[in-house]
Amino acid sequence: MAGALPSQAGRLSAPVATASRPAAAPAPTAKAAPALRIDPTFWWVGMKNPRLQLLVHSPGIAGSTATLAAYPGVTLEGVQKLESPNYLLLNLSISASAAPGQLKLEFKGKKKLSYSYELRARNTPGDPSKVQGVNTSDFIYLLMPDRFANGDPTNDVIKGMKAPGVARDSMYSRHGGDLKGIENHFDYLKQLGVTAIWPTPVVENDQPKASYHGYALTDFYQVDRRYGTNEEYVRFVQRAHQQGLKVVHDVVLNHIGSENYLFKDQPAKDWFHQWPTFTRSNFRDAAFNDPYKSSADFNQFNNGWFDTHMPDLNQSNPLVATYLIQNFLWWVEYTGLDAYRVDTYTYSEPRFLMQWGEAITSEYPKLGQFAETWVQGTAQQAFFAKNILPPVDGFKSNMPGVLDFQLQYAINEALTKDAGWTEGINKMYYTLQADWMYEDPMRNVTFLDNHDMSRFYSVIGEDFAKYKMGIAWLLTTRGIPQLYYGTEVLMKNYSNPDGKVREDFPGGWPGDKKNLFTTRTGQEAEAFDYVSKLAQYRKSHPVLHAGKLMQFIPDAGVYTYFRYSDAGTVMVVMNSGKDEKTVDTKRFAERLQGFSSGLEVTSGAVLSDLSSLKIPGRTAWVVELKK
Amino acid sequence: MAGALPSQAGRLSAPVATASRPAAAPAPTAKAAPALRIDPTFWWVGMKNPRLQLLVHSPGIAGSTATLAAYPGVTLEGVQKLESPNYLLLNLSISASAAPGQLKLEFKGKKKLSYSYELRARNTPGDPSKVQGVNTSDFIYLLMPDRFANGDPTNDVIKGMKAPGVARDSMYSRHGGDLKGIENHFDYLKQLGVTAIWPTPVVENDQPKASYHGYALTDFYQVDRRYGTNEEYVRFVQRAHQQGLKVVHDVVLNHIGSENYLFKDQPAKDWFHQWPTFTRSNFRDAAFNDPYKSSADFNQFNNGWFDTHMPDLNQSNPLVATYLIQNFLWWVEYTGLDAYRVDTYTYSEPRFLMQWGEAITSEYPKLGQFAETWVQGTAQQAFFAKNILPPVDGFKSNMPGVLDFQLQYAINEALTKDAGWTEGINKMYYTLQADWMYEDPMRNVTFLDNHDMSRFYSVIGEDFAKYKMGIAWLLTTRGIPQLYYGTEVLMKNYSNPDGKVREDFPGGWPGDKKNLFTTRTGQEAEAFDYVSKLAQYRKSHPVLHAGKLMQFIPDAGVYTYFRYSDAGTVMVVMNSGKDEKTVDTKRFAERLQGFSSGLEVTSGAVLSDLSSLKIPGRTAWVVELKK
Repeated sequence: MAGALPSQAGRLSAPVATASRPAAAPAPTAKAAPALRIDPTFWWVGMKNPRLQLLVHSPGIAGSTATLAAYPGVTLEGVQKLESPNYLLLNLSISASAAPGQLKLEFKGKKKLSYSYELRARNTPGDPSKVQGVNTSDFIYLLMPDRFANGDPTNDVIKGMKAPGVARDSMYSRHGGDLKGIENHFDYLKQLGVTAIWPTPVVENDQPKASYHGYALTDFYQVDRRYGTNEEYVRFVQRAHQQGLKVVHDVVLNHIGSENYLFKDQPAKDWFHQWPTFTRSNFRDAAFNDPYKSSADFNQFNNGWFDTHMPDLNQSNPLVATYLIQNFLWWVEYTGLDAYRVDTYTYSEPRFLMQWGEAITSEYPKLGQFAETWVQGTAQQAFFAKNILPPVDGFKSNMPGVLDFQLQYAINEALTKDAGWTEGINKMYYTLQADWMYEDPMRNVTFLDNHDMSRFYSVIGEDFAKYKMGIAWLLTTRGIPQLYYGTEVLMKNYSNPDGKVREDFPGGWPGDKKNLFTTRTGQEAEAFDYVSKLAQYRKSHPVLHAGKLMQFIPDAGVYTYFRYSDAGTVMVVMNSGKDEKTVDTKRFAERLQGFSSGLEVTSGAVLSDLSSLKIPGRTAWVVELKK
Repeated sequence: MAGALPSQAGRLSAPVATASRPAAAPAPTAKAAPALRIDPTFWWVGMKNPRLQLLVHSPGIAGSTATLAAYPGVTLEGVQKLESPNYLLLNLSISASAAPGQLKLEFKGKKKLSYSYELRARNTPGDPSKVQGVNTSDFIYLLMPDRFANGDPTNDVIKGMKAPGVARDSMYSRHGGDLKGIENHFDYLKQLGVTAIWPTPVVENDQPKASYHGYALTDFYQVDRRYGTNEEYVRFVQRAHQQGLKVVHDVVLNHIGSENYLFKDQPAKDWFHQWPTFTRSNFRDAAFNDPYKSSADFNQFNNGWFDTHMPDLNQSNPLVATYLIQNFLWWVEYTGLDAYRVDTYTYSEPRFLMQWGEAITSEYPKLGQFAETWVQGTAQQAFFAKNILPPVDGFKSNMPGVLDFQLQYAINEALTKDAGWTEGINKMYYTLQADWMYEDPMRNVTFLDNHDMSRFYSVIGEDFAKYKMGIAWLLTTRGIPQLYYGTEVLMKNYSNPDGKVREDFPGGWPGDKKNLFTTRTGQEAEAFDYVSKLAQYRKSHPVLHAGKLMQFIPDAGVYTYFRYSDAGTVMVVMNSGKDEKTVDTKRFAERLQGFSSGLEVTSGAVLSDLSSLKIPGRTAWVVELKK
């Protein structure tokens, strides 16, 4: 797709990741491994699913006999060995009547080990501030915690972690941003009109290189300590909720980091997709549901590794599936987070995806879920969302919404190519038209750019008029809008070759010369104000999120659509051409009927005659219609 | 779409059609109108549907009382008046026991009129040469009867018809081609490997201008006499069948010609979509199923006229629907034709389309049907074919196959653009991948060009190497291949602005200096022989039509796919780049297993080592694998 990176192949993690850690290098000092580790690290009584599978890890543990001291309502139903002598699986059943407390586990072998396993009282039920979901009333702010703001310099470097420390002059090193840094700017985000924060993954990525992005997790149950402790993340979610901000938790189901203990000491070979020599995914989701696919292409897509340092999980192994599902129930219950953004969704085992979605939704029906589906064409995108299709090859997605890459391609094209029969702004019309395949396209997350793409402002040639058009579209079209951090202050750059689309937010670090959190001038101020004005307007005018959408076929490069409900009507007119156009509105009668004038909400201009509109070139009007 | 015309807007009929007949011009001499006309002009006993609705046309007939003389098994169940005094509808019921014969109808009014209405014995049942359908074993040859060959100069100009005669130097005039001209070249077509002939509509187009294409029909029950009589068409079909050639009959459901008696003397205003001023369709099929459509856009698409001289039928009027359905049952029963190609399929009333398909299929389950769906994107194309989707807005297409415009865009792009992530030859992979939405994509008709498009050989820059790649693809990919007349001898030209893609086939007219039916030299001969060789090979190797398809993700501009069945395997390797490539075939193991060598069927070259293939630039190999 023009203007879009070729699927995942262009992800920023790739360039660095191809340099794998030399095999001969000494193992870096790890955090002290506990004598015995159990995942999930604790659990709750009263979960819907009474079963719990504990993965016990300790050298030679498989030679031990595991017992559970009597605990009312809890039964150890079975113990399972794995290929590795260092693991045991304990299958527990926790009845509805079980009370919180400590399970006493004993492992008798060469040594005797005891473990006190905590069963907590549930955290999320009955608290409406927890697990709120996301919906069209939200405005999501995507940021990279390492790059947004450094609120706690004491956690920049954690002793024993493998990265060589912070280096703000390198795009592939840690910069020191953290949860506290985000918290410090809740006010800024609220001023901007944001209602939900989506940080790239906050879980531990204790890799020696380029782990700052968070997609190579090394511990399923640990926040990266350079962002904060687990407890600090729980408080972060709480404080966000107190401020009216939701939290989207970014998760990876497909792969982990090569420094994860599960990979370094593999429970069994079939926990991962093993290849005779390193084999990268072909990144062609098309092979997922190609009726003519070869097994070679499908396997390479699905089981090939995302990168050298990202082992690919074998989720068709039911033990792996259970491990993952439990982990993602755990984070919700533990933190009260509001939504999951699922990374590389299309790369996982088809049946596991269905199983995961079912388990998560069954326990947390209110939890928001949207997936990364960096695919080509709306049909393919809809295939990976809840759709109107019957199962294809046994797969039917239960992912409520997807990151709307197709509309991202479309808005890019609208602002960079002249209008043609299907090209330029007409692509926006055609892309939305294809929404007929979704169960509910309003659940899709729309965006102008993200951390894997060239920044919007650069793509449109740093044209401020086009910038406003993009923002106006983002905040008025259907779906849940998402902004990438810094776009509101015109941060720029290209994804290739240097990853500069992940630069630090100016002002996020003590001593930054420029502080755009507090001091904005010129177009940076204008941009922030434009986003903020529209976001606040959107917030207070439900028609822009809950209203219906009606679009008209673009005419001579001018695209007009309406959001409407009983509460009112907003007309959006986008002139993608560079010259002023006169729009005869007769064709829009069914939506204009009953209205006599309009207010352009970003400029305050009044349109006193709706019968004909003279709209300047490269302009989007957001017009509240008046009776 | 690059390389493709913007939907219907570019149809060749448009440039002329915009010049409507001057209102003040004297009415041209029409064929003598009968005192009383009844449609269908005759019918059969023993049809599955016992009901028959006769449309009676005669001045003032509505003031008459209609009676049917006693006829065993036939009942006149009702008589219906219309808005015009010149029409009556007679609703008959014909029981299974009725015998062939003449119904005596009487109309008593100011004048008394008698009519002997013929009920024939059925023509098609029990004769396997009739209504054969089309399937993947076929190779369809699309031609324009006015432009292919003039076999009967005596029918070039028919007295009383409105066109001013033949003018071979004008692309918009009649040239004199006819059914006899096609018949004269059955041998040529068979030599080429063709198994089915699709002439553009043969029905009467008695329009004063640019009617040679056949899409402005002026009599639903009459072959255009410049091609031959009705009886001659019946014989044409018979002779084609005797020669092993099927006949595809091209029909228009959406509109008629303005000189049709039904429009000049309208039964009722609601038989047509009426507009205050001439309103052309917006040609945006997207409005058919856009969930955000405005009624304005949908109405203009669906009810707007295709052109000034093409009144748009209102098929939501059940009387119109019945008239059309009966007509298209009539042609099948009368001629034994094998398949319908449905023009402008997407432009008709959604529910009527379903009703038409159901009625036709119910009576003729073996009849072939494929539709013109000049749309954007496979999802939209699949929407108009039988697909795996539930009904959308009450519409579920029952059209078995469609003309595969998406693959036509793809092959064009493959041969004119460099390979990119989704571009160039990769578009072919992606387009076929989307086949998962069809009920059976094998029923789609594939093509390189047609009468509405720039000719394939011109689009690819008259590059003979690319030409062979296109032909190789057409005759080996899935579906039913269709060739546009003259492509086999490198006829060229662009659709705009002068319509030269509809030039006469050289040698089709007495005295033509060049006769490519009989005398081909140089690349014209080479082209013909290449098509013929592959078509004959395809004919004798069912694996190329009935075999399964497996495609591999293109690699470095080389696209490889296999057709395979128990009977054998054919590997097609297409190198779209200009340089030689070495293809490591390890990835294809699942299809190459058991084979040790290959025969390139167009050149006879032997591939003795299948492990690595050195394929020259701009080349397609069609390789029969050998054990």
